[in-house]
Formats: sequence, structure tokens, C-alpha cells
Amino acid sequence: MAGGQDIMLSASINLLSAIAFLVAFAILRLQPFNDRVYFPKWYLKGIRASPRSSGPLVRKFVNLDFRTYIRFLNWMPAALRMPQPELIDHAGLDSAVYIRIYLLGLKIFVPITILAFAVLVPVNWTGESLQNHKDLTYDGIDKLSISNIDSGSIRLWAHISMAYMFTFWTFYVLYKEYKIVSTLRLQFLASTNRSPDQFTVLVRNVPPDLDESVSEHVEHFFCVNHPDHYLIHQEEVEREKVLSDPKAIMPAAFVSFSSRWGAAVCAQTQQTSNPTVWLTEWAPEPRDVYWNNLSIPYVELNIRRLFMGVALFFLTFFFMIPIAFIQSLASIEGIEKVFPFLKKLIEMDIVKSFVQGFLPGIALKIFLIILPSILMAMSKIEGFTSLSSLERRSAGKYHLFLFVNVFLGSIITGAAFEQLQTFMNQSPTEIPRTVGVAIPIKATFFITYVMVDGWSGIAAEILRLTPLIMFHIKNSFLVKTERDREQAMDPGSITLATSEPRIQLYFLLGLVYSVATPVLLPFIVVFFAFAYLVFRHQIINVYDQKYESGAAFWPDVHFRIIIGMITSQILLMGLMNTKGISSSTPVILVLPVLTIWFHRVCKGRFESAFVKFPLQDAMVRDTLERATEPNLNLKMYLKDAYVHPVFKGGGEEAERGVAGGVTAADEEENSPLVSTKRSSHKGSKRESHASTSTAPPN
Amino acid sequence: MAGGQDIMLSASINLLSAIAFLVAFAILRLQPFNDRVYFPKWYLKGIRASPRSSGPLVRKFVNLDFRTYIRFLNWMPAALRMPQPELIDHAGLDSAVYIRIYLLGLKIFVPITILAFAVLVPVNWTGESLQNHKDLTYDGIDKLSISNIDSGSIRLWAHISMAYMFTFWTFYVLYKEYKIVSTLRLQFLASTNRSPDQFTVLVRNVPPDLDESVSEHVEHFFCVNHPDHYLIHQEEVEREKVLSDPKAIMPAAFVSFSSRWGAAVCAQTQQTSNPTVWLTEWAPEPRDVYWNNLSIPYVELNIRRLFMGVALFFLTFFFMIPIAFIQSLASIEGIEKVFPFLKKLIEMDIVKSFVQGFLPGIALKIFLIILPSILMAMSKIEGFTSLSSLERRSAGKYHLFLFVNVFLGSIITGAAFEQLQTFMNQSPTEIPRTVGVAIPIKATFFITYVMVDGWSGIAAEILRLTPLIMFHIKNSFLVKTERDREQAMDPGSITLATSEPRIQLYFLLGLVYSVATPVLLPFIVVFFAFAYLVFRHQIINVYDQKYESGAAFWPDVHFRIIIGMITSQILLMGLMNTKGISSSTPVILVLPVLTIWFHRVCKGRFESAFVKFPLQDAMVRDTLERATEPNLNLKMYLKDAYVHPVFKGGGEEAERGVAGGVTAADEEENSPLVSTKRSSHKGSKRESHASTSTAPPN
Repeated sequence: MAGGQDIMLSASINLLSAIAFLVAFAILRLQPFNDRVYFPKWYLKGIRASPRSSGPLVRKFVNLDFRTYIRFLNWMPAALRMPQPELIDHAGLDSAVYIRIYLLGLKIFVPITILAFAVLVPVNWTGESLQNHKDLTYDGIDKLSISNIDSGSIRLWAHISMAYMFTFWTFYVLYKEYKIVSTLRLQFLASTNRSPDQFTVLVRNVPPDLDESVSEHVEHFFCVNHPDHYLIHQEEVEREKVLSDPKAIMPAAFVSFSSRWGAAVCAQTQQTSNPTVWLTEWAPEPRDVYWNNLSIPYVELNIRRLFMGVALFFLTFFFMIPIAFIQSLASIEGIEKVFPFLKKLIEMDIVKSFVQGFLPGIALKIFLIILPSILMAMSKIEGFTSLSSLERRSAGKYHLFLFVNVFLGSIITGAAFEQLQTFMNQSPTEIPRTVGVAIPIKATFFITYVMVDGWSGIAAEILRLTPLIMFHIKNSFLVKTERDREQAMDPGSITLATSEPRIQLYFLLGLVYSVATPVLLPFIVVFFAFAYLVFRHQIINVYDQKYESGAAFWPDVHFRIIIGMITSQILLMGLMNTKGISSSTPVILVLPVLTIWFHRVCKGRFESAFVKFPLQDAMVRDTLERATEPNLNLKMYLKDAYVHPVFKGGGEEAERGVAGGVTAADEEENSPLVSTKRSSHKGSKRESHASTSTAPPN
Repeated sequence: MAGGQDIMLSASINLLSAIAFLVAFAILRLQPFNDRVYFPKWYLKGIRASPRSSGPLVRKFVNLDFRTYIRFLNWMPAALRMPQPELIDHAGLDSAVYIRIYLLGLKIFVPITILAFAVLVPVNWTGESLQNHKDLTYDGIDKLSISNIDSGSIRLWAHISMAYMFTFWTFYVLYKEYKIVSTLRLQFLASTNRSPDQFTVLVRNVPPDLDESVSEHVEHFFCVNHPDHYLIHQEEVEREKVLSDPKAIMPAAFVSFSSRWGAAVCAQTQQTSNPTVWLTEWAPEPRDVYWNNLSIPYVELNIRRLFMGVALFFLTFFFMIPIAFIQSLASIEGIEKVFPFLKKLIEMDIVKSFVQGFLPGIALKIFLIILPSILMAMSKIEGFTSLSSLERRSAGKYHLFLFVNVFLGSIITGAAFEQLQTFMNQSPTEIPRTVGVAIPIKATFFITYVMVDGWSGIAAEILRLTPLIMFHIKNSFLVKTERDREQAMDPGSITLATSEPRIQLYFLLGLVYSVATPVLLPFIVVFFAFAYLVFRHQIINVYDQKYESGAAFWPDVHFRIIIGMITSQILLMGLMNTKGISSSTPVILVLPVLTIWFHRVCKGRFESAFVKFPLQDAMVRDTLERATEPNLNLKMYLKDAYVHPVFKGGGEEAERGVAGGVTAADEEENSPLVSTKRSSHKGSKRESHASTSTAPPN
């Protein structure tokens, strides 16, 4: 049981460090002077104020009420107490659905773990493969894994039937969860208050027109092609017309409609016979707009995506080459060659040991730290127009990177381009075998990985060491006013682009090992449970989301779990092949076919809830609103909703802004009447007014 | 030059047989009694009538004017004379664009052939690889092919740079052609006369409602969710309302709108939050509807497609197994075993030689003849709702079958499942090498194939031997009235489902051999030129299309040529690898990446013209129509447009019909007033009338 003892030791260390983090958190969070680090969300909501200065001064900084320390784990039930509707209201749907990913992990893996321990562990334990080969060294983990089953044994069919049961269970949970999330999204979209994006469509690639400015062109185009009956029949143009172009940024515009129905129609239809101009899509929330990317021409966009696709391939498979090069430079000889004048300094013992021990690793570490930023920059170059879609795209790239370099890279040791070479020179039936046979061997490694990265990592997350230190540094040296203190708080947010792909790694490990080495499963389950608890606490008390996308990321989450399932099934095929029952191949082959089909069914059934907005729902809301607020002046309401940050008075948003320099101001006109040549189509003398609403007073 | 001589002999035989067919055609078509076989289209159009009976009786049957025989090839310039706009008007856009596929072949391959003969043939000819190996037998074709270049020779880079030039040239031609075809389609859709499908949307999966019939449910749903202003503001319901459900077939309906704009909006948008009910799509032309498939539930549709996907896989790769089994039965011993009483008969010499020589092959032949029907039946099971989409889907299946079993099957001899096994046990880099190295070797075989299947096959097409014989048999025994004679004509039509995938085989061969063995190219060019001529003649004089889809098949044609390009590039990579310059792999790898990217650009740029209908175009036509025909009664016009064939008075269409027994009649109501609970949403007392227009007088 040597291996088992190793694991126990590693588990103890990681459990202790996790507990240490938790205790530190429990103590620190009770200190009033840390209040803004551990409860920033409540401050931002205005519900919590700075601790009152009644009582002795020391009470402002240190909590002396020792009774509170006894219940140092009471944040856990508190985090679980808030019901989901309240949670959605408090933290937004993005956050509430994000923690459902961990819940989904529990739903999938708790029953699988129970079943695997009830069936597969006894089957493996009573196998005799390892005892028969006395010359092999094996450890306790192996005795519980498929390695302990003889080649060609009939017992392997137990594993195959379990693979079927696990697959169908995962289907069931995934389907139900997709249904719940899409319902939540539709309810969320229907129940939220009136918001500008409900009435607004983003129009890109407005073609140039010789006679008209972009602003006029947009207005006339939509007047003609989306004649709303308010506009036509009342002619109270000044009050009712919000049809066209409140704010134009060439050659893109946010076009608002007088009803949600009108906006839903415009967003979902094609406007002209040339599908590369007048592109319409739902406008993202105003906070969510990524302004720099609004005006990229169609062909340029395609070329950018081609280059980024190629770049991603090289980044994923060949990133080790430049890093190995830098590492070779970071050796003693390398430095002496490039900077000969440093020779004397380097030859000193302490510097030498630092260079030798630390520098080679640091290049890789720095790369891994800045990798998410690189991927985000690549997504920005690809030209997506909202922050949420940028995060989703980056998450996809990061998932590929982790899959190739962490999962496959740990199984087939060696850099990714070496794996690529290995795979290219093996047959399609050989590859799953090569990987499959290594799966049980690497179980111990991945158990350790789950404990270090999962358990301790999550515990470190709740401690928020970096924001804690930064806040106190800022507080001591920079903060002068209450507003400064507000800005010194760094609530952070869920960084979907990095954290979601990391969760996917646990799904992948759980699915792959569920049949081969079920001993890994409890570690995964503990991770999901603990992470669920911690992140639920964080989204309630800490994080402040920058935008709300209405859980638009769920189709990606679903898709990546499907990828994990197919991977696990193919690897099982390879593993079974090396176990000498190749007759199982067609039996297992049914699973990926079913999985792909299941994915298509789910896509057809649910995905549209995430990309389209149904006309019926729009009509119901419009009708209700017209009945309850007949005098609503929508135009006034929408006037300043989408304003380029450059026009907003100062502040960080302007700074974040516009290196590209999108000019909008010179497109604006104040003339009250603009005759439109296109109105002759309608045979009516319609007066159209250019919008005068761009430079806002704010 | 033995191989060269073989080819010349084969070419002469095929040329002679082609010329024989053409001469036979030239003579037969001039005989008045064949007029209905060779010019049925003009009869169907009513432009040509039966030959007048003036003059001697013999003139009615035999053309005695010998001057006409001298110009026996004059159908060729005549076929080319009709300009394209007239052709579209005469034969429809489907036919006119179909022959553009052959034209596209010429546009791609004529310049490629010239370039290949100017550069690659001299480069190959002056190579010395084959002369250096005196022990090898080689023929003239090989001397002109890449086989004559030494391994690792620098000359191979000429082939690689030519591959680049051919690729870019093909991009250019494909892009231009896609642009032309999509423009033609949009013009066609815009210029055609008013037709019911322009105003109509097919609604499927109407959910059941407890209180209302399907007919009422459809009406109320669209009244509420697509309130057109005619309906709301005039309340001349009886005359103006065409909004809902003229003809309901449960649980699907054809819903017509008062404007093209309304229909375009409804077809492109999602109606409710559940994307599996109230599915809307453009209604196909009335002739194009495949009625049996209108009411398949969503889940059943998915299961059907899963099974058909699996079935297609087995059909493609394992069809030889049952056929081999039947062939084994069809041997002497097999028949004696199953039918022992036939023993004496079979032992007779003449029967024995017949069974041995003929029966084994006949099973395969019968299979190949009925294969298109099998594929069409599979497409029908998949649940597509229009004849045009059924043909397109069948074409896709047939293309896969030809690609695997004819192209790959001829190169890697052996049945498809043996190939599959070969491929599964080779590495991804090994497969292109295995195929690539066989490419130049098989050139002679494919040249013969092009001549037999292409040249003689096309010449046989124009002779129309089967319809000729059938017509005269029918005419002699069955025809009594003029109407009988009309029905005895079998004009036939372009069978897209089989003929388009066959053309694709020529594109594939041309692209694959353009670099390896350019000698094949002239044979391909002759095929395209000859086929263009023949099919142009046929669509002008013979074929009568059953429906008009507006060239909706073009994206598939484009996509399959792209597949051919990528295949050729991957095989070139393998070939170059065996030629010892593996450094070329990354250089050639650029090509498939570029090709995939090119495909995506084209898809984004043009495909929507084939699946959507732009609102601007709809609005322009609506406005024009309202101005020119203000008193048009659209409701009357649309009333009987979509009537289930079962309700049409007798005739073949009813026979073709409804084994499934879709009942519509019992859903119809004649009550003039139906109060709708949903109208309360609108806060108005609207009267809605159930449609009374189902059982047509026709």
C-alpha cells in the first residue's frame, strides 16, 4: 500500500493547508479593518457602510468579541442559505449559473461515485492480475483500478456496462440542467426591468453612401425597411420616433425600436441581399459593449480570424519552443554570452545558485500567468463586439490549451509538439491505445493534482491574499477621501475565461477515470462540493460582475462536457483494446455516436434560447407595458443608453477606452428636417428628423 | 509507349461509339414520329403541336428532306444560341444553373490544363527517374507524370508551386461563380411573378391546445404575435385577412401573410421560447412540397436522423457484405443447396454457363441501379419537407458513396470496409502516403473511366434510347386520345440527386491529377465541354423540371468542390512525402488551411442568399405591388395555393400521395365568428374569423 500511503500523506498536507487557509480567512474576515476586502459587494450595493466609530478605537480595527471566533465556520451555512431567486437578484444570473457548474459536477459525480464504489471497486479488488505478476511493483491504488483485472477477463464487461450507465446518467443530468438554465435565462430576460438592450439592435458594416452621412443613411434605411405603425400613422415624429439611430458611430450604429417585437425582428432577420452589410444582432448591454471592435470591415474580420486560428494552433502545440530557448539563455553560460560584463557578478555563489535554481522555471511561470491575457488579446483581434463574447472565446482557447498541455501532456509526457508528432505517426486506432494504457498509471499523479490545484487552490481563493495586501497598502498611503477608499476596494469578479476551462479539467478527469480508476472520484467530488461552497460565498459577498450576459456561456459549458465524455469513451475503447477484448470496440463505439447525437438534440432544443429572442415573449412584454405605462416616453429613455465612453464625463471608462479613435461627433446633425429621397417609395411625404441626442449631458 | 497506345485505342473506341450515338441521334431526331421524344418540352409548353398531316402520309413519320441530314450536327450551335436570361425564363433557374456546373468545370480546368502542359509536362518529360531504372516497365503516360521525377529532386518544387497556382485559380473561379449564382438567384426571386410561396410560411410542430382546434390555434397565435396593420386598423376582416391558416394540416400549417415583408419576418424569427414548437420556415413552392413529412414530431425526427446516419455509414462501408453473400448463393453450389429440385436444370450446359457468367455480377448491378432510390428513401425517412431538399440530401449521400467506393475504392483496391480497416491501422501521415503513391499508377484507369462513363455516357444520354422505345411501345398499344399521347411522353428531368455527385467525381479527378498526371486533364475538359453542350440541348428541348428551387443546390456544389480541393491537397502532401521531400509538408499544409478559410468566407458572404430572404427586397416588392395593384385581393389569390393533393380532384398527384393519411378536413370549421381568448392581450375587441377555405372547388 505504498502508493496509498503517499496519497494519504499528500492528502493530509493539502487538507492541513486548506484548513490553515480557512482558519486564517475565518479570523481575518471578522476584523473590521478587513471588512472592505471580504464584503466589498455589500459596500458597492450601499447596504454596508464603514464600521461605526462608537466604542474604543481598537474596536475599529480588531474584533475583540471572542464568541464570534468560536463559530469560525459559520460562513458556510450562511453561504448556502440564500435561495436561488434572491441570489439571481443579488448577484446576477451569470454568477448564479456559474456556481451551478459546480453543482452540476456534484449531480453528475456523486451518483457515479456511489455506483462505481458499489460495483467496480469490488470487481477490481477481487481481480488477480497484479498478484499473479509478483515481479511487478504495484500499489494500493492500482489494486482498486482496472489494472488489477486480467487481460481478456469477462469482468471487463462490468466496466463496459458501467460506462453505459455513467453515460446515460450524465445525459440525464446534462439535459435537465440545460433545461433549467435555459428556463432561468428566459425568465431572467422576461422579468428584468425595462432595459435599453431590449429595444436595441447593433447594426454593423453600414455601407457608405455618397449623398448621406452615416447617421442619415441609417435612419432612412430603417424608416423604409422597418416601418413601425406608430411612425407611419401618428406622425408625432418628435415624440414617438426612436426608430433610427439615436447614436451613430461610423460605420456601426445602435438602432432602437419602439417595441421589443420590432427589435427582435430586426435582430433575427437579414436586411439586404448582401449579407456582409447592414449586419444586425442583438445589442449587448451598454456595460458589455466592447467599443473598439464595432467597425471592423467584413473581409478584414475574416483575415484576422484566419491568422488567429493559425496563431492558436502554434501557441498550443509549439509554445514550449520559445520558452525552452529563453530557458537556455537563462543559464549561466547563456547570460555570460549575451552580457559578458555581468560575468563577475554571476560567478558569485549566491547569484549563481539563484540563476540556476530559479530562472529556468520563471520563464514558464510568467508565460502561464500572462497566457490568459494573450488569449484575451487574440479574441479582441478576432473582433468580437461584447465583453461577454470575448470572455467566452478566450475560455474556448484556454480549454484547448489545458486539454492538450495539461491533460494529454501529463499522460504522454513530453512537450505538445512531441505529442503531435507521436500522434501523427500512429494510426487512429493506436492513439487511444497509447493514451488509454497510460490512464490508470497516471491516476496517482492526477489525485495529487486535484488536491493541490483544487483543494488548496480554492481555499486560497477565499482568503484573497493579494487583494487583502493591496487594500491595506492603498489604504495606508493613498486613501484620502471616502471615494478613494471605494476605489481601493478590489472586489474582483468571476473570470470566466480562465476559471471555467479549469473546472472542465475536473469534469474531464472524473469522466475519464470513472471507469478506469474510480478511487479518483471522491477527490473530484470533494473539489466540487468545496468549490461550490466557496464560490457561493464569494459571489454573495465579494465579486462584482462587470456585465450581465444572462448565462450566455452555458452552451459552451455543455459542449465542453460533451467533449470530455467523448474523450473518455474513446480512451476507454483504447484501454479495452489493450486489455485484450477488442470485441468490445463496436460496443463502446455506440457511446460516442450517441453522445454526438445527444449533443445535437440538446443544441436544437435549447441553444436558441441563448442566441435568439422569441417573438411571443417580446409581444407579451410590449403589450403589458403599453397597458401599464401608456405614456412612457421611450425615446427619452433610450436617448443616452449607448454612449461611447469617450463622451462620458471623465472617469475610468473613458480611460479604458478608445485607442482606435472612433469618431462619431462629426456624424451628428442638428438640423430639424432632413428630406429623404427614399420616402418616395412609400408615396408619402414623411418628415424625418435626425437625432440630436449624441453628446450627453452626463 | 505501350500505355499511350492503349489509351489511344480506348480513346478511339469511345470516340467512335460517341460519334455513333450522335449520328443516331441526329437521324432519329429529324423523324417527325420521334418529335415527342426529342422535343417534349416544347409540346408541354404548347408551342409545338403534332406534325400537321398535310402532304403524303409517309412524311408524318419519316423525314425525306435530305438537305436536313447534311447539317446533322446543327443542334450544337442551336443549343448554344439561347442567351441565359431567355434560358432561365424557358427552363427555370434550377436547370440554367445546373448546366453552369459544367461551365464551371471548363472555367477551372481549361486554364489549369494549359498551364500544366506548359510547365509540368516538360518538367516531367525531361525527368530521368524512369530511364535510370531500366528494370521497371513504364509507359508513355508515366513519362509525362510525376513518376518520372527523381526522389528528392528540386524539380518537385515546380509541382508544389503549380499546386498553389491551381488552388488560387480555383478560388477565384469558385468565388466569382458563387457570386454570379447568388445574384442570379436573388434576381430570379425578385423578378418572378407573384407566387404564393412569397407570402407563405410553413409552420410545423403546432403544439396541441385543449380549448382550440389546430386551425383556430394557428390563427390566434399569428393574430397575436404578428399583428399586421391591415388587420388591426381596418377590420375588413373578411376581405383583407390572409394572416392565418388558409389551409391547416395538423399539426402543421401554411400560414400566409399580407405582405412579403411579414412572411420574411416570420420565416426568419423564432416564435416562442420553446424552439421545438411553432417552427417556421419559408414555404417551398406548392409543387415542391413533400406532404408526407409535414407532421413529424421533433424527437422522432431526431431519432430518425440518428438511425439514418448510422445506416448511411454501414451502407457506404459494408454494402459489399450482403452482396457477396448473395453472390455466393448465386453460384451453382449455392443454388443446388437452396433449391435441390433445380439440380437437373442447372446442370444443363447452357444454364450452367449463364449462372456462372452472369448471376454473380447481377446482384451488384441491381444494387447500383436501385442505390439512388435507397438513398432517396433514407432522405424521406429523415423528414425533409420539400422535394428539392430531399434531392439535395440524397445527392450528399450519393457523393459520399461515390467518393469512398469509386474514387478511394479504385485507388486502394478492395472493398470499402477493407479500406476502412487499412485506414484505421495506419497513422494519419501514412494514409495520404498510401493513397498518394497509388495516384499516378491509377491514371490510365481513370482516363479510361472518364472516356467510358463521361464521353460515351453523355452521348447515350442525348439519344434517350429508353424513352424512345417506351414512347413507341406506348404509342402503338396504349395511346388513344391526344391526352394519352401527352402522358406517353416521358420528358424526364435533371436528376440532381444522382447526376450532380457524378459531376463531382470529375472535379475530384481533375483536381487530384492536375499536379500528378496532367495528361488526364484534357479528357476531363472534353467531358465538361461535351456534357455542357448535351445538357444545354436537353434542358432546352427535353427535360421538364418538377419543381423550381431557385438554384438552392449551389452551396452544396460549392462545398463538394472544396472537399475535392482539400482531398487533392492532402494526397499531394502524401505523394511528396514518398518523393522524399518531407520538408514540403508544411508548405503544402498551408493550402488546406487556406481552402477551409476560403470556404468559410464564401459561406459567410453568399450562403444566406440561399437560406434567407432579405427584408429590403421584400419591402421593395411589397411597395411596388401596392402602388401598381392597389386593389389586389391577396386572400383570394392565396386561398387554394397550398392544398393537399388528396383534396385535388383525382389525377396523379393524389395517387402519389398520402399513405400516412394526414387528416385535415375534420379540423376545418365554417363558423363565421370565433372569439379568441388571446385577443384580450391586445385590449381590443377584435373579431376573428376561422378560415373557410380548405376544401377547394378544383
